[in-house]
Amino acid sequence: MGEALGGLKRTMMCGELREEHVSKKVTLMGWVQRNRKLGGLDFIDLRDRTGIMQVVLGEEINAEAFEKAKSVRPEYCIAVTGEVVMRQSPNENMPTGMVELKCEALKVLSESETPPIYIKEDLDAAENIRLKYRYLDLRRPDMQKIFITRSKTTKAIRDYLENNGFLDIETPMLTKSTPEGARDYLVPSRNYPGMFYALPQSPQLFKQLLMVSGFDKYYQIVKCFRDEDLRANRQPEFTQVDMELSFVEQEDIMAVNEGLISHVFKEVAGVDVKLPIKRMTFKDAMEKYGSDKPDVRFGMEITNITEDVRDLDFVVFKSAIENGGSVRALCLKGGADMGRKPLDKLGEFIKTYKAKGLAWIQLKEGGVKSSIAKFLTDDVTNAIVKTMNAEAGDAVLIVADKDSVVFQSLGALRLELAKQFELVKDKNEFNFTWVTEFPLFEYSEEEERYMACHHPFTAPMDEDLDFIESNPGIVRSKAYDLVLNGEELGGGSIRIHDTDLQERMLKALGFTQEDAWAKFGFLLQALKFGPPPHGGLAFGLDRMIMFLAGTDNIKDVIAFPKNQNAYCYLSEAPNIADEKQLTELGIAILPKEDKKDEE
Amino acid sequence: MGEALGGLKRTMMCGELREEHVSKKVTLMGWVQRNRKLGGLDFIDLRDRTGIMQVVLGEEINAEAFEKAKSVRPEYCIAVTGEVVMRQSPNENMPTGMVELKCEALKVLSESETPPIYIKEDLDAAENIRLKYRYLDLRRPDMQKIFITRSKTTKAIRDYLENNGFLDIETPMLTKSTPEGARDYLVPSRNYPGMFYALPQSPQLFKQLLMVSGFDKYYQIVKCFRDEDLRANRQPEFTQVDMELSFVEQEDIMAVNEGLISHVFKEVAGVDVKLPIKRMTFKDAMEKYGSDKPDVRFGMEITNITEDVRDLDFVVFKSAIENGGSVRALCLKGGADMGRKPLDKLGEFIKTYKAKGLAWIQLKEGGVKSSIAKFLTDDVTNAIVKTMNAEAGDAVLIVADKDSVVFQSLGALRLELAKQFELVKDKNEFNFTWVTEFPLFEYSEEEERYMACHHPFTAPMDEDLDFIESNPGIVRSKAYDLVLNGEELGGGSIRIHDTDLQERMLKALGFTQEDAWAKFGFLLQALKFGPPPHGGLAFGLDRMIMFLAGTDNIKDVIAFPKNQNAYCYLSEAPNIADEKQLTELGIAILPKEDKKDEE
Repeated sequence: MGEALGGLKRTMMCGELREEHVSKKVTLMGWVQRNRKLGGLDFIDLRDRTGIMQVVLGEEINAEAFEKAKSVRPEYCIAVTGEVVMRQSPNENMPTGMVELKCEALKVLSESETPPIYIKEDLDAAENIRLKYRYLDLRRPDMQKIFITRSKTTKAIRDYLENNGFLDIETPMLTKSTPEGARDYLVPSRNYPGMFYALPQSPQLFKQLLMVSGFDKYYQIVKCFRDEDLRANRQPEFTQVDMELSFVEQEDIMAVNEGLISHVFKEVAGVDVKLPIKRMTFKDAMEKYGSDKPDVRFGMEITNITEDVRDLDFVVFKSAIENGGSVRALCLKGGADMGRKPLDKLGEFIKTYKAKGLAWIQLKEGGVKSSIAKFLTDDVTNAIVKTMNAEAGDAVLIVADKDSVVFQSLGALRLELAKQFELVKDKNEFNFTWVTEFPLFEYSEEEERYMACHHPFTAPMDEDLDFIESNPGIVRSKAYDLVLNGEELGGGSIRIHDTDLQERMLKALGFTQEDAWAKFGFLLQALKFGPPPHGGLAFGLDRMIMFLAGTDNIKDVIAFPKNQNAYCYLSEAPNIADEKQLTELGIAILPKEDKKDEE
Repeated sequence: MGEALGGLKRTMMCGELREEHVSKKVTLMGWVQRNRKLGGLDFIDLRDRTGIMQVVLGEEINAEAFEKAKSVRPEYCIAVTGEVVMRQSPNENMPTGMVELKCEALKVLSESETPPIYIKEDLDAAENIRLKYRYLDLRRPDMQKIFITRSKTTKAIRDYLENNGFLDIETPMLTKSTPEGARDYLVPSRNYPGMFYALPQSPQLFKQLLMVSGFDKYYQIVKCFRDEDLRANRQPEFTQVDMELSFVEQEDIMAVNEGLISHVFKEVAGVDVKLPIKRMTFKDAMEKYGSDKPDVRFGMEITNITEDVRDLDFVVFKSAIENGGSVRALCLKGGADMGRKPLDKLGEFIKTYKAKGLAWIQLKEGGVKSSIAKFLTDDVTNAIVKTMNAEAGDAVLIVADKDSVVFQSLGALRLELAKQFELVKDKNEFNFTWVTEFPLFEYSEEEERYMACHHPFTAPMDEDLDFIESNPGIVRSKAYDLVLNGEELGGGSIRIHDTDLQERMLKALGFTQEDAWAKFGFLLQALKFGPPPHGGLAFGLDRMIMFLAGTDNIKDVIAFPKNQNAYCYLSEAPNIADEKQLTELGIAILPKEDKKDEE
């Protein structure tokens, strides 16, 4: 049992105390980090969210407090009152290390069992234990810092946007299923049994309607939901910084967001973002980096050597070229020293990206060594070396296939090599790039039709309007992504604000007019009433915080995350539901499949 | 078809233009409010979210723009460029009424069909049409103002709380069902077919866990959900300003929130909230106002006249008193003039609150008139008049019953009379009251057990701790509500931070220990690890905005609201779901009941 506060007030926080507070009488409240006895005295390290303060207790200082302290154990919640004094043996490693508190009164506010995880930095406890006892995990100073950063970040975002005329407007959580998106979470309706709401994957349609309403500059920091199998660093519910603007073009939206990003990264992390942020077209990003989210913190760009090898009598290259593909390569500095085994491993690695194999040429001191030596001629080798700007000591790593496979595999290989050879020199660098001119459509082999690359409301580039029907594959869009260190931080587009064009777009995606109206009717209808030109962007807040807090685990930046199966170890959700409630909702639970055999 | 912006930039907003801008060249973009011809000129009232600007077009000014303007109709979205000039005939009623724009270029950005609702203030269109075309409804200046107010309000709340050390921390939306609350919205899980998440009714348990984590001061502006039959001014999803603090007592939380409310009402509405806000115990509120959310903008308090009538030979009064009830009354100033019919109507009115009837005494010029004249004696009449402080011209309205019925019926009657007789003089008054010392439990006849008045985590008052088991009905809690003009603006409590006390509380609510752990295990577990003393409060944001925006319809303050059946006319949610997806979720739709007979 603990004591009530009984009017006792906390007057300072543990981490705030310095020499200037010496001889001041203060009351601190917090948790016992550890306690130890030394020379007849009792020392308690007291922790709150600002830091740790050493509290000293003794028979001479205050006998009652000294007596009470004997029962105190780690993670007890206590209040201490006393005078701040200089420490006999200062601790230079602690911000409060010059002073200590001479404890004249101690209250145990609550006791603690031995915690199942130790509350300290850099914890290695099993993840499910950390998630089950999340409230203890969140006591760790590391975790506290992250959520202080997160709160600071949203504040900085809001301040910037609201100072720039944006209105914070809430859109519904119980809404309609999103066609063309990922899988929705459904919510059964009680008023309409057998019918369902969907939780939003993004407020896309609603924010466009707000533009039709004339709100002009909208933003929201909002929960979104996707019921997908969770890849690493995905959560079923995530937070988006969502915005939409009217009477703007792509340049205006990019300018606002450069201002936003530079404000936020400066405020929160003290980082100066160099403006304007550099830009790259989707095409360049794919050709040079094999990715629409290029990591440009290091070079080693993909280079096209198709012309150099066109006449080579090597069937792999030949058939790739003949089938409209290409031969491209990376130049790995110092790669000439790599042994056969690591090279073979790289070959295996790129096969997971559908490449058939990796050809390599090593420029060793003693001469050229190559996996395709018997096909190479000196002329071709020299041409490749020249195109690649390769030097003695380097290795040239080559893939031949259709372009999409070449880009994807070399793009992945480039990142893998950067990891292996630590090519990113400055871990604290924040390297931003806009990627623009995304394709409007991508062809889905599975669905045997074109799909929207961004979403079906994205405007095509004016120059490419005529090809929507005749050659959808080449149509570029007014879509743009902001990429940071090889990760997508956010993305958006100018939207279609014309019913006719929106209907052409939906037709190109394979919707009949009836389908289109059934699914997007309320947007198509709204576009008939004087919609303004508009566009927007959304950032993934969780990922932004990961950058700002310096963690690569999304669970670290979400207070109560779920595991890979969307399960919450803490609250044990999801859970069974009340039969009566299900009946009210007009639904029943299907018998489990593995039970079928028994029945 | 409309034109693209083509690099054209908006340079000012319609509502901003004043005499000081004369001779400046500007580009405006917005919607055509109306257009009319006069003396060979074409006048367009152009509207954006800041206001309306008159645009003048003529053959002489710019022939091309003049020609284009001929096709323009209301709600077309257009861009106009030209010089600001003084108006020939100024309009004093418009902020921009001294100037107009001489239009040198006009672009039709998009056309509009004739809108189904007229875009102006004080609209009377049918609600379902307004909701279906919500994006047009939101174009009305009245509605735009409300959402500008809403955005300003959340900004003011965030600024205040963050400047006072609060951290904005997000809690999960996909979580566990809340026992002891209203009905939850359920979300079927795909990973665990047949299992369900619940959408939160409030972040109550999670914010308490954040306190256990040491976050100290938490806040969140967060969507909450209740699947209840919608009374007027309720929505299935609503927004809460939620907070929780550690190492505090009731006084600290009230102080922070008085600061918050005074900051917000000053910033948003220019209102000076008188601090400290006055307080009233629950007991006083019930006895004087018959309500736990007393409207104290007018007097006419309930007065106990039991002692005055104790000896009267009137069975209604007698039996009420004998059964432990009471006889209480209101004094209606000027009520002596009321005719029989309106008095009978008041009698009918209070019957809906379970009162058996209304007795009245009118102090007319000529003498006393009463519905219970034959039972009254002069002495008793005089005693009542004295107790009630009644004067000639007044009416005394009396109810006798058990206390709960007396309070409820007279409380409702008091409000009804205030409406009929316009007793609230200053419609712009913001009259705040704290109501404190709520009962911890209330007895549910239906469930035949005590229920938590606030919620099961609310701390009892220290003075009443001993009665939890022996006399739960008299135990008061450390709960408090903030009431504004007779409506609950927010409420909260100090929480239990002790497992033993929490278990006693749950036991008193009828939970076995096993039940308690099954339902609240993760909170009970957390309380074992040094929880700090803590408490909090939550405001209903939607209701706060209703006050600040001066509307009494909750749908006005929610951008995309649902109707009384939780249906969205705009998106037509809820909707049918894909059979395949339901199978993945392990659920099936029950056949409709009205179909059962056919099967």
